[in-house]
Amino acid sequence: MLRLHIGNKNYSSWSMRAWVLLRQAGISFEEKYVRFDGFDAGSAFKRTMSAVSPTATVPLLQDGDVTIWDSLAIAEYVAEQFPEKRLWPEDRAARAAARSAVAEMHGGFTALRSACSMNIEADLADMGRIIWRDNAGVRKDMERITAMWIQLLARYGGPMLFGEFSVADAYYAPVCSRIRTYQLPVPGEIAAYIEHVHQLPGVQAWIADALAEQDFIPMDEPYRSQR
Amino acid sequence: MLRLHIGNKNYSSWSMRAWVLLRQAGISFEEKYVRFDGFDAGSAFKRTMSAVSPTATVPLLQDGDVTIWDSLAIAEYVAEQFPEKRLWPEDRAARAAARSAVAEMHGGFTALRSACSMNIEADLADMGRIIWRDNAGVRKDMERITAMWIQLLARYGGPMLFGEFSVADAYYAPVCSRIRTYQLPVPGEIAAYIEHVHQLPGVQAWIADALAEQDFIPMDEPYRSQR
Ligand SMILES: N[C@@H](CCC(=O)N[C@@H](CS)C(=O)NCC(=O)O)C(=O)O
Ligand SMILES: N[C@@H](CCC(=O)N[C@@H](CS)C(=O)NCC(=O)O)C(=O)O
Repeated sequence: MLRLHIGNKNYSSWSMRAWVLLRQAGISFEEKYVRFDGFDAGSAFKRTMSAVSPTATVPLLQDGDVTIWDSLAIAEYVAEQFPEKRLWPEDRAARAAARSAVAEMHGGFTALRSACSMNIEADLADMGRIIWRDNAGVRKDMERITAMWIQLLARYGGPMLFGEFSVADAYYAPVCSRIRTYQLPVPGEIAAYIEHVHQLPGVQAWIADALAEQDFIPMDEPYRSQR
Repeated sequence: MLRLHIGNKNYSSWSMRAWVLLRQAGISFEEKYVRFDGFDAGSAFKRTMSAVSPTATVPLLQDGDVTIWDSLAIAEYVAEQFPEKRLWPEDRAARAAARSAVAEMHGGFTALRSACSMNIEADLADMGRIIWRDNAGVRKDMERITAMWIQLLARYGGPMLFGEFSVADAYYAPVCSRIRTYQLPVPGEIAAYIEHVHQLPGVQAWIADALAEQDFIPMDEPYRSQR
């Protein structure tokens, strides 16, 4: 049985990628929730994760004695173990593009990631307007993301980035969530894609759990002092 | 015929990963060198790369009409196209660990990457001492990297991280280069690994080309005003 360690569903964008991928693909797994109380060495989160992971980060996947400690490596592992789920596009050129898009997310978009941290429960539209006005890095990241999505949706015909659901959609699901929370402006065809991602059963299940958490973690709340 | 776009060999760490992987594996490819004159929209580098890549970054791999625009996606593409080269470890648990280690590099170690940018030709030992003294982030990144290497070398028996050469060694080759340039302190078993990587024919070929470049790119030279 696969065992996936994750952080708070309201906040943990990397956890969301791995969890949504498995859930949307219908791959069963045991969920191990590790609450974010802090990321310093003495935190319960770090102590729990250090016992199972060399980086003490989430997500972490365990499959028997196999340990996979990064979300992208988890995606590759799961895609390899469950070929019938077609988690990467079957066409070679599409698969190469999907891996490029996923790797681009994995290593990039740092302005968006740091200014607009994921917060599913919150409505941060006001902050979003200020960020959009003042933060050129966020605008540049969004420009690239929307250009990529428009191009892929046109080439592969939608509704997902490569036609059918793939790792790429799981990987960009937290970006869709941020766009919603901060109400960042996007072109119409992109709004439709974001809504499709939002309606995926795997995403809906994650969001329902996130809303049920009722937890307020100050380190993940740069813009609020309380809920 | 594969066609790999790369930047300056002295400076471009992401290019080095893809190039060393192909070269060390004995996969033939055409090299397209695109000199770093700047990263602003008007630079010759950006204009050249924009014509072939959605991100206008190097490395970029073209295989006929397939375009792969990220170094990690390039590694996966090449590993898939040339299974006989065994670019990932054959054992499932080792492969999962190799992918985790590579993804960890791809998305992390930002303190090391920004304070100790790659500069193969330079001797920056003095700067290295100052960085080591003042930059806790660099020390933390190096602590994790050396812990990872020690554990993998012990588990898989060396001389490479997973026994034989794999994507992981290509991915950490620029880290080995930085440790040499800045003479960052490392434990003895790590020094031996760094030397093994340095002696790989694929790495030696890259370094020889880097030394032949004789180019000085100010944006990649935070610590020197001239060679
Ligand atoms: N590149 C990693 C990133 C994982 C990551 O940074 N996760 C955060 C939570 S979303 C974490 O565990 N942080 C703990 C820490 O930084 O100490 C991945 O893709 O899995
Ligand atoms: N995540 C990318 C990073 C590529 C990258 O940032 N390359 C640098 C050169 S080493 C570049 O092309 N920079 C140009 C720019 O940032 O505009 C990859 O792994 O391929």
